[in-house]
Amino acid sequence: MHGDDQHGEVTVDELDLAAELSGVPSAKASDDVAEYALRLGDDALILSQRLGWWISRAPELEEDMALGNIALDLLGHARSLLHYAGTASDRSEDDLAYWRDEHEFRCAWLFEQPNGDFAHTIVRGLIAATWMQELYTALSQSTDASLAAIAAKSVKEVAYHRDHAVQWTLRLAGGTEESRARLLVALTDTWVYIDELFRDDELHERLEGAAPRPSSLRAGFDEVWDAVLAEAEITPADFVDKKVGSSSGGGRFGNHSTHLGPLLAEMQVLARRHPGASW
Amino acid sequence: MHGDDQHGEVTVDELDLAAELSGVPSAKASDDVAEYALRLGDDALILSQRLGWWISRAPELEEDMALGNIALDLLGHARSLLHYAGTASDRSEDDLAYWRDEHEFRCAWLFEQPNGDFAHTIVRGLIAATWMQELYTALSQSTDASLAAIAAKSVKEVAYHRDHAVQWTLRLAGGTEESRARLLVALTDTWVYIDELFRDDELHERLEGAAPRPSSLRAGFDEVWDAVLAEAEITPADFVDKKVGSSSGGGRFGNHSTHLGPLLAEMQVLARRHPGASW
Repeated sequence: MHGDDQHGEVTVDELDLAAELSGVPSAKASDDVAEYALRLGDDALILSQRLGWWISRAPELEEDMALGNIALDLLGHARSLLHYAGTASDRSEDDLAYWRDEHEFRCAWLFEQPNGDFAHTIVRGLIAATWMQELYTALSQSTDASLAAIAAKSVKEVAYHRDHAVQWTLRLAGGTEESRARLLVALTDTWVYIDELFRDDELHERLEGAAPRPSSLRAGFDEVWDAVLAEAEITPADFVDKKVGSSSGGGRFGNHSTHLGPLLAEMQVLARRHPGASW
Repeated sequence: MHGDDQHGEVTVDELDLAAELSGVPSAKASDDVAEYALRLGDDALILSQRLGWWISRAPELEEDMALGNIALDLLGHARSLLHYAGTASDRSEDDLAYWRDEHEFRCAWLFEQPNGDFAHTIVRGLIAATWMQELYTALSQSTDASLAAIAAKSVKEVAYHRDHAVQWTLRLAGGTEESRARLLVALTDTWVYIDELFRDDELHERLEGAAPRPSSLRAGFDEVWDAVLAEAEITPADFVDKKVGSSSGGGRFGNHSTHLGPLLAEMQVLARRHPGASW
């Protein structure tokens, strides 16, 4: 839409719109690190787009604002991660967001799931933020300075997201009969996407020291998850259908649920209508 | 959706989601002050809902984030103003946002206009922020302590919004042939809504000292507006169609353009589906 090489005296630097990225080292990522950053960047990007839907649709102005702020935090994390991922292949964050096709996205299935009702959004957010907090805490010790910096910056915001989701989970659980029933439906629909987040694969072996093994984060996640459920007076038996079992997932390898395609279509249509991002 | 009087131990205060409203005195507004606050609150609310549309649709992640941040700033201003307006009639900000019908809204026509293309969004934003900056600067000297406090808090954010719009106006003007042509179309379509912002009426007479007369803000607005156009090398003759003339407007008295209805329908549907804001 706006051609950076074509405009007049005003440069992007002067606009200072990219200040959010400052403080993050701009080293070139290795191919493995780039693939890893892409996974986390896509998680944050897709969840941020989902939450953006609530802006102007939430049933309270206060919640409109809270979900909007969380969406923008996640968008900031996504930009840092995609920017870094792109250094390995000379692509910009926008190239990665708007010009990849569905099978090239690396988000886990949790993040692609529809907003559903408010309870679904809250449960998805609770799982996401609890996982991200464990992950970013560990990743802030990464031997990769850029990943460590991005994680250290993001973990503070994720702590607020988790707190928001925990408080709402407790309110829904202890609210009316209907709010509790809806929460249980949301838990039933969403818990199946937890497992995929903690699966190790060959990439993590190659990134020893630079990235934590997902399986190593599970104990920390479970501790928080179990404590929240206990406080909400909910046991896994209330929502886990053992005949269903965990979702196969596959997002880390480009196999996505049916929900990602329509989201990408809406997100990418304007950018693709103006190729080269210029009028 | 979430019944405040029905949930368990966790209170809204503990959630601290209402912190944005802190620092604003909670005096009870007179009927005239409430009507005035409603006008400004509706301006900010409707523009914020319009800008929220761009989240997940902007052609650059950076711009996605910039417009999203502006939308949330405006939503914050709207909440403060509607909260204060509601004190006169024992209504909450949510009552005012979700339970008024179209003829009860008091926004000027500028804010109701569709997003159009990016140039339309920028021109609408330029006019809005330039007007708001003049207004909030004057209003921060109001004899009404609450209005003064809200204005003093909002004016800093509006300065950033204006800067954002000015920089983009200059980039579009000095970019490609197409970006300049689109900017001129946007100016042609939008300048007609300027006049309504500066019309005095009886309410302003009754609020002498508590609120500036809109006409008194025109010189300051024109100074900025003329300077931006001059730097963009655009003269009014390039976009003003004298046969068309200014829009009749009428939003301050509940007469709205055809664009407001659909926006309200989308904004209000979820809240109205759950009357009493509880499950």
